[in-house]
Amino acid sequence: MTGRPNGDPDGRDPVDDATLALLLEVAGTPKPGNVDRERDLTDLRFESFLGGSIGARAGLESAARGEPLGPSFERAVRGMADRAGTNTQFGCLLLLTPLLAATVDDTVAPSGTVTPEAVDRVVRRTTVADAVAFYTAFEHVDVAVDDPPVAADALDVRRGGSAASTLRERGVTLREVMELGAEPGGIPDRNAQEWVEGFPRTVRIAERILADEGAVTDRAARAFIYQLAREPDTLVATNHDADVARETSRRAASVIEGIDASSDDEAADPPDPLADHVDLAAATTLAEAFVDGGINPGTTADLVCAGLYVALRRGLEVRA
Amino acid sequence: MTGRPNGDPDGRDPVDDATLALLLEVAGTPKPGNVDRERDLTDLRFESFLGGSIGARAGLESAARGEPLGPSFERAVRGMADRAGTNTQFGCLLLLTPLLAATVDDTVAPSGTVTPEAVDRVVRRTTVADAVAFYTAFEHVDVAVDDPPVAADALDVRRGGSAASTLRERGVTLREVMELGAEPGGIPDRNAQEWVEGFPRTVRIAERILADEGAVTDRAARAFIYQLAREPDTLVATNHDADVARETSRRAASVIEGIDASSDDEAADPPDPLADHVDLAAATTLAEAFVDGGINPGTTADLVCAGLYVALRRGLEVRA
Repeated sequence: MTGRPNGDPDGRDPVDDATLALLLEVAGTPKPGNVDRERDLTDLRFESFLGGSIGARAGLESAARGEPLGPSFERAVRGMADRAGTNTQFGCLLLLTPLLAATVDDTVAPSGTVTPEAVDRVVRRTTVADAVAFYTAFEHVDVAVDDPPVAADALDVRRGGSAASTLRERGVTLREVMELGAEPGGIPDRNAQEWVEGFPRTVRIAERILADEGAVTDRAARAFIYQLAREPDTLVATNHDADVARETSRRAASVIEGIDASSDDEAADPPDPLADHVDLAAATTLAEAFVDGGINPGTTADLVCAGLYVALRRGLEVRA
Repeated sequence: MTGRPNGDPDGRDPVDDATLALLLEVAGTPKPGNVDRERDLTDLRFESFLGGSIGARAGLESAARGEPLGPSFERAVRGMADRAGTNTQFGCLLLLTPLLAATVDDTVAPSGTVTPEAVDRVVRRTTVADAVAFYTAFEHVDVAVDDPPVAADALDVRRGGSAASTLRERGVTLREVMELGAEPGGIPDRNAQEWVEGFPRTVRIAERILADEGAVTDRAARAFIYQLAREPDTLVATNHDADVARETSRRAASVIEGIDASSDDEAADPPDPLADHVDLAAATTLAEAFVDGGINPGTTADLVCAGLYVALRRGLEVRA
């Protein structure tokens, strides 16, 4: 797919779609607790996200050529960090790289489409070398991670590249690293869950965004709030604790009307547009409160970014 | 230059810099009368500018490979219009494409740097075929243009590709088309002036942005206001008249203190940062008033975008 002319609507470059997903994610407003179009955080500016989106390109292109996932991800993170000078979109890139690889995989679906089956296949192909590259990526940025379970101590991601020998000795693939993250006890790492479970949240968010109405940045904001209400955020749990993460989700649910966002039942997903249920004006007040309280639901933002990518592949347009 | 790894700070891809310039331009806030981070216009959304920035890439890459300027520009406009569904950045692309071509031209300066001499050389190389492609680009979008001078009637850009035969008969190059636009009488087309004069405004804006302090989006907003105060905007003159354009510049000057922005004397440029002179809080009030009055200084925004590109090539960073 890469390299088809941009002018051909049926041949949109997946890397362009991934870049646009990064941009639309940060532009979604209000996105309580995160940098958005109207809010910078003290140490994190909107423009750094623009830079990170651009800097990640070489790594995203590598993933979209079907090159190994770990090194592609590591290259994307390195380019992001070089442009942004900080960690703006580590989690987004962790989700976008396998989605890009799945987009060009034509073994289960035509090249250009992204399906849960294809992304699961891509993830299952990851190797020990991919795992080593993933650990190396942590050397480029500061990433908030939870205390590892004791058993995984030698594989604490904070060990960066020095975990390589352990990974090789034990023969741990990148998917297996994600399996460790997906079930740490309290609030699991949602991005790791996506890797292991076939990206179900990503697909649901894409469907909600496609079914919604109005500006894409408004749809992204509503999808963010709804996802946050449904599942406690990993980063909030890491920076605070599981109780704060659950309370944050309850506060997000308070700006949603007419549907039970706290239900684990997927069938509870609204058949009608989120615009009918999520009150963005009330969410603006929540945004101020979250920023004041240092509540930063960054993992939920990662999931929305991934959802935006899938929605763009399925025809979402920013056209006036 | 294109293709060097993003991770190498000395080898930043010029196309990435051009894309980032498009993004930083629209994110500059407040940018009175234009779409910015906090303001959409009725028929023009921020997200369409994000889409336009991404859609233009194939054309920008063509210019950065040194391919003919007119077709590169036309391709960038087509990709922009396909993503954005409207004209978001026609003028920005008209300035960025020769700047990209100049960046990879290594006859007057090392490849990777952009100098007025190189861009003048690039512009002087344009042909009749470039002019024809330029006219074709108008078929992809609605662009506000002034009534042409009578002599140029057969070359009214609103004729689009149908002007091709006239261009060929008369042997008019793209630079000669710009010469027509640069001196129409009232308020000249500033973008055409840049083409003909060797991009002096672009370079001055880059220097002001580099000498300024703080967030790049704030610097972009101050550079916009200062440029608008110095020279009446082409698009405002086109949409209203020359008097409204001059009055708009006077209102922009009213939020600048301690320097005479209305002076044509380049030496009057402040040696100290624009942050010391331009009051962004007062500009916010101006932004509301301009939007209410339908005052849209879009050409000034094009110049700031070009200035951001040159500033990025000279080391401007969005790093936190």
